[in-house]
Amino acid sequence: MSRGDTAATHAPSRRGFLTGSAAAAGVAVGAAGGAYAAHAAQPGPATDTAGLNGARTHDFHGTHQAGVTSSPGAHGAFLAFDLPAGSVKDDLRRLMRLWTDDARRLMSGAGALADTEPELATAPAGLTVTVGWGPKAVALAGGSEAVPSWLRPLPDFSIDALEDRWSDGDLLVMIHSDDPVTVSHALRMVSKDATNLATERWRQTGFRQAYGSHPSGTTMRNLFGQVDGTANPPLASDDFAARVWIQDGWLAGGTSFVLRRIRMELDTWDQVDRIGRENAVGRTVDTGAPLTGEAEHDEPDFDAVDARGFPIISDVSHIRRARPDDPSQRIVRLAYNYDDAPRGNEPAEAGLLFGSLQADVDAQFVPIQRRLAEADLLNVWTTPVGSAVFAILPGCTEDGYLGDTLLD
Amino acid sequence: MSRGDTAATHAPSRRGFLTGSAAAAGVAVGAAGGAYAAHAAQPGPATDTAGLNGARTHDFHGTHQAGVTSSPGAHGAFLAFDLPAGSVKDDLRRLMRLWTDDARRLMSGAGALADTEPELATAPAGLTVTVGWGPKAVALAGGSEAVPSWLRPLPDFSIDALEDRWSDGDLLVMIHSDDPVTVSHALRMVSKDATNLATERWRQTGFRQAYGSHPSGTTMRNLFGQVDGTANPPLASDDFAARVWIQDGWLAGGTSFVLRRIRMELDTWDQVDRIGRENAVGRTVDTGAPLTGEAEHDEPDFDAVDARGFPIISDVSHIRRARPDDPSQRIVRLAYNYDDAPRGNEPAEAGLLFGSLQADVDAQFVPIQRRLAEADLLNVWTTPVGSAVFAILPGCTEDGYLGDTLLD
Ligand code: HEM
Ligand code: HEM
Repeated sequence: MSRGDTAATHAPSRRGFLTGSAAAAGVAVGAAGGAYAAHAAQPGPATDTAGLNGARTHDFHGTHQAGVTSSPGAHGAFLAFDLPAGSVKDDLRRLMRLWTDDARRLMSGAGALADTEPELATAPAGLTVTVGWGPKAVALAGGSEAVPSWLRPLPDFSIDALEDRWSDGDLLVMIHSDDPVTVSHALRMVSKDATNLATERWRQTGFRQAYGSHPSGTTMRNLFGQVDGTANPPLASDDFAARVWIQDGWLAGGTSFVLRRIRMELDTWDQVDRIGRENAVGRTVDTGAPLTGEAEHDEPDFDAVDARGFPIISDVSHIRRARPDDPSQRIVRLAYNYDDAPRGNEPAEAGLLFGSLQADVDAQFVPIQRRLAEADLLNVWTTPVGSAVFAILPGCTEDGYLGDTLLD
Repeated sequence: MSRGDTAATHAPSRRGFLTGSAAAAGVAVGAAGGAYAAHAAQPGPATDTAGLNGARTHDFHGTHQAGVTSSPGAHGAFLAFDLPAGSVKDDLRRLMRLWTDDARRLMSGAGALADTEPELATAPAGLTVTVGWGPKAVALAGGSEAVPSWLRPLPDFSIDALEDRWSDGDLLVMIHSDDPVTVSHALRMVSKDATNLATERWRQTGFRQAYGSHPSGTTMRNLFGQVDGTANPPLASDDFAARVWIQDGWLAGGTSFVLRRIRMELDTWDQVDRIGRENAVGRTVDTGAPLTGEAEHDEPDFDAVDARGFPIISDVSHIRRARPDDPSQRIVRLAYNYDDAPRGNEPAEAGLLFGSLQADVDAQFVPIQRRLAEADLLNVWTTPVGSAVFAILPGCTEDGYLGDTLLD
């Protein structure tokens, strides 16, 4: 008889490890450094997986969180939590230590500490776990003077039909991976560790094209069939850095994240012909090239006119309205499709989990969203139904934990 | 100025093509044979995708439907429809012609006929679209004498907590692909074509590990972390054929499909230690080997006893109860994990979309399910909440359409 790995005979309390003696345990885990994958009952990636996409990992440690510096996986989950009334700074610190430890281990392909299903963690497939704070969490950690001026609900826009259940939140965890099993498992670990420390407020999951479906580097398509993400700068570029990173203060190395849940009316969109669709965006549907160009990455020529003197890219097309004249207003977009089946009394709903990364929400995102709310042909078929703003924490070192620049 | 592909200036009516003059158009499309990918406004897979998993296709035509003969993709969608009161045989024929045409085109990587987002179809990633009928559809097509005796709701089992909204249905469409965008698009095409001919009854979507995550041939894991599917026969084997295919009558080359939606109580499962978990199934968690063996595919030894004379694989373990003594009772399992986020008043729910393929539900599936309902350690953590039975149609030729063995 072989029982294989015998492991623990009693499922150990995951939380006990880290919170039994909170501060000390947290430091001890931090100090253990790179040894996570070697932890006894936690299998690392199987040995014959070299070269597989499943074995691909991102380093958790660094100046920035890896979920911002790496390209998003095929599957994304966004979880918002609220801090219960009466939470104190130490509660937040404990939660951040737990989540830091989860992210560190899971991103390396190991199970979480005392993971009850570590086998579901063996294919990280580029997993990133990224944490952000709403204003309440920041104030708890560092007092109200630590809250950036842009960290608050967005101003009202005339196009909005926001629902509370998709909006706001005290904490955000963003999980990306090419494997849906990995995402489901990571999400569960993060949720379990939040028990008693934070309550789930909303959860939204989305998808992009799978790993291996298109040549790598292919821009994603949204459910309108559009090439979506063309104007984003390359990840490691100076342009990306200039748009995204906060330079000073406790958030240096962090950024801000706006998540808009935008319902897309696929039925009425389908009634529009290709010319109408291309006019609405200012780009072709097949290649995503600007209407004034040939290839996806050609620069749009907003001054070009047709034989009758009309602009080829409409003045109220999405790209014309969305592109800032002032380069300091640019954002980096991070989008996932969603296509939720009907459930209970809830009808089916499809759309875009539209994420926006920028150093300053008010200076960069808000002017764009204001212009789009005033005029954008796409508005006919899109309705924002959720909205949330978070400060994405800086990365941390092997000895540190997420949020330590304000919590320590 | 370049507008790229100009396509149609008015979005053509997809249904017009096939149903305007139903019978004639249906035949014409059938006769067009392999030319689907060449249809004017429908881009085929991009030319630089050779070797990509996204370009992988299954042939739609053949004795059997490809969704049964091929290994399931990372993403699965199951849609049930009801026929409206007053449906006549010709309505069903029209719907079958539409769905046949959708399946044919989409599985080849082309858009559906008059597809409004053909770009979302370019990476089939092994897409299969598989159609089944409930008793009402069979009776409509061929009279009540055509309805197999097993095509009816399963008998009641004591463990069941079935909900109508996940149960039964007149028609089934099963969509599998490694790409979630492809699944979402195919699902939409199939739904649109059902308009006025059938109403959606339920929709369930699930996932398995992604393409590229594990060495090919790795058995999937369910959300309990278990290796799930080991005892299934290889797809092209005689054993598979003997379990699955119906030999005679209008369903020859078809099979039957039972879909059980089984909620899994992850929270209480997590309180069970590894020994308890392995005992419940009769296999180890890490490799899926039987408790009496070393490797996943070792034969379980149900007679082996430990030093105290107790069976090593418990008499009430899942595999002991599930394995028929009579080999003619065997089934082929097709499982997808589901992990539905909370929505509206609906709490989160995770579990298994447990599918079972067999030539005869009563002779093969029911005895197993009856034994498991009587005693199975896994029952503590699992609850069937949905149940449906369908006849999976035989495949069809290039000149034919799904269901033609009864409808013509
Ligand atoms: C469901 C809603 C939306 C859809 C379907 C959509 C779609 C698109 C598409 C197809 C493009 C052109 C290709 C590209 O560069 O990505 C684009 C560009 C862009 N979109 Fe959106 N978008 C949506 C919402 C938004 C929102 C809410 C914002 C910001 C408030 C935004 C900001 C931008 C920006 C800044 C660009 C690049 C413009 C440029 O500089 O060329 N979009 N969008
Ligand atoms: C959520 C519910 C279920 C879970 C988690 C589950 C899990 C498992 C696992 C882990 C195995 C062992 C590995 C393998 O051969 O796949 C297995 C085997 C099996 N299960 Fe299930 N199962 C479930 C429901 C069912 C149901 C409803 C049936 C049929 C009514 C069934 C029939 C079988 C059969 C026939 C085997 C193979 C037994 C053998 O011959 O070795 N299972 N299941």
